[in-house]
Amino acid sequence: MGSLGPYKQKHKVTVVGSGNWGTAIAKIVAENTASNPAVFEKDVQMWVFEEKVEIPKSSKHYDPASSLCQGPQNLTDIINHTHENIKYLPGITLPENLIANPSLVDAVQDSTILVFNLPHQFIINICEQIKGKIVPYARGISCIKGVDVNEEGVHLFSETIGKILGIYCGALSGANIANEVAQEKWSESSIGYDPPHFDSKAPSPPNRSPSASTDNILHFEHKDVSGQLSRVKLQALPSEFPPIDHALLKSLFHRPYFHIGVVSDVAGVSLGGALKNVVAVAAGWVVGKGWGDNAKAAIMRVGLLEMVKFGEQFFGATINTRTFTEESAGVADLITSCSGGRNFRCAKLSIERNQPIEKIEETELNGQKLQGTLTAVEVNSFLKKQGLEEEFPLFTAVYRVLQGTMSVDEIPSFIER
Amino acid sequence: MGSLGPYKQKHKVTVVGSGNWGTAIAKIVAENTASNPAVFEKDVQMWVFEEKVEIPKSSKHYDPASSLCQGPQNLTDIINHTHENIKYLPGITLPENLIANPSLVDAVQDSTILVFNLPHQFIINICEQIKGKIVPYARGISCIKGVDVNEEGVHLFSETIGKILGIYCGALSGANIANEVAQEKWSESSIGYDPPHFDSKAPSPPNRSPSASTDNILHFEHKDVSGQLSRVKLQALPSEFPPIDHALLKSLFHRPYFHIGVVSDVAGVSLGGALKNVVAVAAGWVVGKGWGDNAKAAIMRVGLLEMVKFGEQFFGATINTRTFTEESAGVADLITSCSGGRNFRCAKLSIERNQPIEKIEETELNGQKLQGTLTAVEVNSFLKKQGLEEEFPLFTAVYRVLQGTMSVDEIPSFIER
Repeated sequence: MGSLGPYKQKHKVTVVGSGNWGTAIAKIVAENTASNPAVFEKDVQMWVFEEKVEIPKSSKHYDPASSLCQGPQNLTDIINHTHENIKYLPGITLPENLIANPSLVDAVQDSTILVFNLPHQFIINICEQIKGKIVPYARGISCIKGVDVNEEGVHLFSETIGKILGIYCGALSGANIANEVAQEKWSESSIGYDPPHFDSKAPSPPNRSPSASTDNILHFEHKDVSGQLSRVKLQALPSEFPPIDHALLKSLFHRPYFHIGVVSDVAGVSLGGALKNVVAVAAGWVVGKGWGDNAKAAIMRVGLLEMVKFGEQFFGATINTRTFTEESAGVADLITSCSGGRNFRCAKLSIERNQPIEKIEETELNGQKLQGTLTAVEVNSFLKKQGLEEEFPLFTAVYRVLQGTMSVDEIPSFIER
Repeated sequence: MGSLGPYKQKHKVTVVGSGNWGTAIAKIVAENTASNPAVFEKDVQMWVFEEKVEIPKSSKHYDPASSLCQGPQNLTDIINHTHENIKYLPGITLPENLIANPSLVDAVQDSTILVFNLPHQFIINICEQIKGKIVPYARGISCIKGVDVNEEGVHLFSETIGKILGIYCGALSGANIANEVAQEKWSESSIGYDPPHFDSKAPSPPNRSPSASTDNILHFEHKDVSGQLSRVKLQALPSEFPPIDHALLKSLFHRPYFHIGVVSDVAGVSLGGALKNVVAVAAGWVVGKGWGDNAKAAIMRVGLLEMVKFGEQFFGATINTRTFTEESAGVADLITSCSGGRNFRCAKLSIERNQPIEKIEETELNGQKLQGTLTAVEVNSFLKKQGLEEEFPLFTAVYRVLQGTMSVDEIPSFIER
């Protein structure tokens, strides 16, 4: 089973969330803990929001003689017996060392690495439930796509998690789709991870004040985009554990079919996943107009530039603009979203059918709102407050077209340089 | 007709070449000389390789009573009478101030701005024909896509033109397709232009030795990628003319439907147009395999990185890597080529039909070779000579798959970081 090397303790990993993407990530993590026994405990806990589910007769797990097939059963029981999340990731066999757990508090207990993968609207509530019940020196990785933008500023979900739980949390994002990853089709992702240094001689990033560290507790001030200061207390990982660094995170998330690039730029990794959706809406309109691939490429180029500029302007030196132009969470995710993503498709349909995008959301998404249109409105309220609408003509144009105060035909001249 | 402002002389512009792309660019240039009478002579000469053409009965210009419709006529006569290049850009009305000229020497006479837009295999011959017959202080813009790569180095077509003619020549490239530009569908392009400074106090780029300038003649040494030094003698533009700078070039090429970004990085603008085709071949294979949009985006991301790295490694400080990630000639052209370009399409077909790409070239392109496969072989011979195949795994993988020594299935692990 491999040696512990110089470390006495192994990391226990828990995945919080078990939807489509949560289960796909949990599969990867469990495959990697099994193949890296020197640093990880083999079993991975996955917290599952318990619900009653019936195994359909079409499933390969259907056996009329089995007690599991006598009416609705707990989803966790089904997952733990069949090694398949028949509700949210049907058809995919999960590793046997992935354990579905209906108790949130029990699932996170003793875990040093917490992977958050659930819809963003549940984060605060979930974190409040486990606050104080986790290992104080745990570290998190948020797989929640996007950022939380409002008039006041841009908040990273990883920061929200970290703040509530009093731990450091990084982010994973990239050009990937849960089902394809689960089927082991090749794709890539980026992880942003840059915890404060406990070594006081190491330089601090610009948004963190010089730290005071006593023994294994680090106190520092963190300033977010809206200028809000928060005092963070962070506990060092005991030296019995292998350090949670870029190499360790790569060994936990990288697979032959899922290539991971780990960078220090958490904001860049998170921001790409939000802003690309705004660009995808504009790309959909332009293609819907029949303007062709070159016009679409022009929109994407300008969109990428505005993503870079947004990062530079509001995150300053804490962001690395190469994250947008070189990492999966940047340019690659933008490309995928402007190829066949739902924001692109619905925007295209709205032009082709000459219907407002809300109508398309009704008919194509059962009324669910598109991420791109929501983000466009949020980003605009932020830019407007800063008096910077004109500095971001594409983002502003998307907002205005959505508001009906500009036409798609006006976009090229509006973004002309 | 506008005032000459402080300048006594206007620029005369000639377009050398009248194929599909040559005629589309000539249309733009003629539109702009007409609307900028203070700096440009209105009439634009377009050199046309003379041939006999018959106006088809389906053409709106067909009139049985007209002498132009009595059998085959000179293409230049047809263009000058109908204002349509019925052979190479049918259906597009050209400005009346665009004059087709069958005499190369006559067409370039007295022109201070020469726009080269013809297949690259004709450049040397054409330049030899006009050598010494052009205005000695003329400046050129090459619209020839790509670069000339061999074992010894990478040569820019703009440099080849400049060297033969003894003038400075920049480059135009971008995400555009001649027919769409001619139809005034919105697209973008980049111009790279960075002539040596006659002001000896201005800093010289790293590949140009300190210059000796006497009056209006500038002597300098230019070192290309293969390390070859050439001594260049350049004549200053007389002060009677408006300076040929970025703003003037923008006024000559920018249209509401054709947005131009002018940068100093000629190599970056030229290189993007060549290397993107290699990436497009790999993207086509991956999509042909059914691996989906994310795998394609991963290929494009890695391809963009290798384009940047190729530029940095072989052009050093003379290249600006932001040209690849921010300009139309870089990322946008890559996106378009990986969407529906012929390299992408043929590579995809070769997987879907399980046929070698040569077979697809035969059936789909009448045996014409793909630019991407040619460039992949040329780039590989250069990288191999430098011992740098491993530093460019995607370019190397494309070459090896073409050679049959690697399979497409091996690409993801070969380019894994």
